[in-house]
Amino acid sequence: MTGAESAAWPHPADFAAPPARADLERWTEADRAARPARLARLRQRMEEAGVDGYFGLRWEHMRYLTGLPFDEREVTSAGDSGKFLITGTASIVLADSRYTIAVRRDAPESRVFECYNALAARWPDLVAEAGVQRVAVEATTIPHLVWERLAAAAPGVELVPIEGWVEADRQVKEPAEIERIAAACAVSDRALASLLPSIRPGVTEAELALDLEWRMRTGGAERLAFDVACLAGPNAALPHGSPGEARIQAGQVLLFDFGAQVAGYRSDMTRTLFVGEPGERDLGVYEVVAASQEAAISTVRDALAAARHGAPLPSGPDVDAISRGVIEADGRWPAFGHGLGHGIGIAVHELPGLGRHSAATPLPTPTVFSIEPGIYLEGETGVRIEDLVAIDASAGSLDRLTRFPTSPVIVGS
Amino acid sequence: MTGAESAAWPHPADFAAPPARADLERWTEADRAARPARLARLRQRMEEAGVDGYFGLRWEHMRYLTGLPFDEREVTSAGDSGKFLITGTASIVLADSRYTIAVRRDAPESRVFECYNALAARWPDLVAEAGVQRVAVEATTIPHLVWERLAAAAPGVELVPIEGWVEADRQVKEPAEIERIAAACAVSDRALASLLPSIRPGVTEAELALDLEWRMRTGGAERLAFDVACLAGPNAALPHGSPGEARIQAGQVLLFDFGAQVAGYRSDMTRTLFVGEPGERDLGVYEVVAASQEAAISTVRDALAAARHGAPLPSGPDVDAISRGVIEADGRWPAFGHGLGHGIGIAVHELPGLGRHSAATPLPTPTVFSIEPGIYLEGETGVRIEDLVAIDASAGSLDRLTRFPTSPVIVGS
Repeated sequence: MTGAESAAWPHPADFAAPPARADLERWTEADRAARPARLARLRQRMEEAGVDGYFGLRWEHMRYLTGLPFDEREVTSAGDSGKFLITGTASIVLADSRYTIAVRRDAPESRVFECYNALAARWPDLVAEAGVQRVAVEATTIPHLVWERLAAAAPGVELVPIEGWVEADRQVKEPAEIERIAAACAVSDRALASLLPSIRPGVTEAELALDLEWRMRTGGAERLAFDVACLAGPNAALPHGSPGEARIQAGQVLLFDFGAQVAGYRSDMTRTLFVGEPGERDLGVYEVVAASQEAAISTVRDALAAARHGAPLPSGPDVDAISRGVIEADGRWPAFGHGLGHGIGIAVHELPGLGRHSAATPLPTPTVFSIEPGIYLEGETGVRIEDLVAIDASAGSLDRLTRFPTSPVIVGS
Repeated sequence: MTGAESAAWPHPADFAAPPARADLERWTEADRAARPARLARLRQRMEEAGVDGYFGLRWEHMRYLTGLPFDEREVTSAGDSGKFLITGTASIVLADSRYTIAVRRDAPESRVFECYNALAARWPDLVAEAGVQRVAVEATTIPHLVWERLAAAAPGVELVPIEGWVEADRQVKEPAEIERIAAACAVSDRALASLLPSIRPGVTEAELALDLEWRMRTGGAERLAFDVACLAGPNAALPHGSPGEARIQAGQVLLFDFGAQVAGYRSDMTRTLFVGEPGERDLGVYEVVAASQEAAISTVRDALAAARHGAPLPSGPDVDAISRGVIEADGRWPAFGHGLGHGIGIAVHELPGLGRHSAATPLPTPTVFSIEPGIYLEGETGVRIEDLVAIDASAGSLDRLTRFPTSPVIVGS
């Protein structure tokens, strides 16, 4: 590989700069302005279901409905702090002494209810203070024994198991949510572009994964969206592998699956690079995967144009089938065993699902999801290309939020 | 501060070197050798409770009982993979296509049961294949709706809600478990020692936190035990604060709460440094906290000597009271609102608890726990000193696993 060829590499400056303080403040304000509408949608569902309270336990919902910036790590040590009860008129957030200051600051429209590792003991006071009799509970999150204890602690208050209410709302994205996902994509794009010159045969997967993480976290990410996957050669055939001590070698593929978090919103992208000149098989696999992805994107783009004239959007399984069909029609290699894609936002995996078994209903809009076909040849090689797209049926638009090129990139020569 | 004074700093070479490949292999083998005894203890409990199956969902238990190295991050995307069913004679681990290879490799004594996001649908086959009729279920982990669906899917199989069985076993540590916690402590000790010259007024908490993380992750940690806390001046008064953009200033305290993970086991330590010469109040607070910690350690050490002659060990609340009593007897500042300490191992927070409300039973042995008194003056300053100790009543020994000095350390002058 010559210097002239590597000049074709994307450069960090090709991508948007990390967010400025003014952006962060604008997004905080946008969330605050959006919360009344988010709560109004929830209260509409509560009314339809005949409940006067909603007890929430998922960290994604804490952030979305109250503003409290909890994540999957925080909740492991937070005890009952962050759990919340929404009524027709109030939002109440539980907090022990470690969290009362944070809740007052980050969830300013909510009232603090002090509770220290004693949820069942405090439950009667909570429901009495809130004045609720029939409470919807996030039943795919609350542990069974906690449910039983709450039911026993206040036998006069009916618990109603529900699932998916807030998840369904969260799949439709507000403009300031899409902006943040796009900003997280740009942080990831820049980080990978800046890493390219460091990739050489002999470095390990784990070293490259840590290097890429470092570039994101010093380049605008408040944290990673998830642990970086860096998988070389046959390891790239493991859709869920972890980077190890394997040293990358010329002639291998090198798969990076990674993402950043910016102001609470996450990105997710996969690029499969070539270390040195690709072999014929690997290049062939790459071209089929790229064509499969492009077919899915084109299908959705065409559907959005048609949607402006009243046509329904395709479902997740429809789009999955288009992408899978390209690989099957080629016929040389098996298509991916996983789904084609997933929604993303506060969490890495959200609705809508774009898999064979996802809901066969039209895609929501506006929304953001991944399109990530792959081909995996066990013991030999693997290629996946993953981008995030934002779609908006009323504008008829599809925007690719990850901007790093999908054409083959050769490194390390 | 002169060069001669900073020569009193601990040096990275004061602490044990990161584990070698031979250590990692030895620990893997030790786990494999220990699993039959761990399973035998569980089967004893099963027999006592009259159940013929145990359905486990906690990631700590996956690692402890089957060998599968899942953690709190893995389980968020693993679906049902990693959940397991123990019978009188078999260990069965659920896995979807992403995980079957990993389960066969990491849980070699277990059988794979394929399951893809369809636990309730597969449950009748699972219990039939296992031949179980009455299954203990980890009821503080299983979501309520999943419990209801399993009960409905196989009405002939009774589900028995249980809690704390494996947690109680895990608090008693095997030698190879204590070795790994000690190795994780050494990684943390070395990282902080190597960071000291970089601490200068004007750097931010977030920059120092990332720097310390980097030193651990390139110095033997496979990952962090938890996110690094770096809190300067009044921020140190927040026992659960996050590092921010605050620039550290001369005259402030600087609190680091951090830990490493080595071969699946975690460390946890806190040091409060002084940026420049400490003020009289901060030094006074520090001395009281150090005396409070020392009193707790001495009490436990004396109790261990007495235990060799048959005396019972103190309880967690007993030790907490000793430490708290030193601060209360001094009388100038309020004692910590949190508990004195917690067990640690595969997870950061395990049994035994050493708080006012922890179990009033003698401490288990051999075990490892933290001793971490603090004084927090809101809006002003905070000091916490946290060490891990390993105790063994049969040897009459107490070992401090974190070796970084607890005497005042002045940086950044």
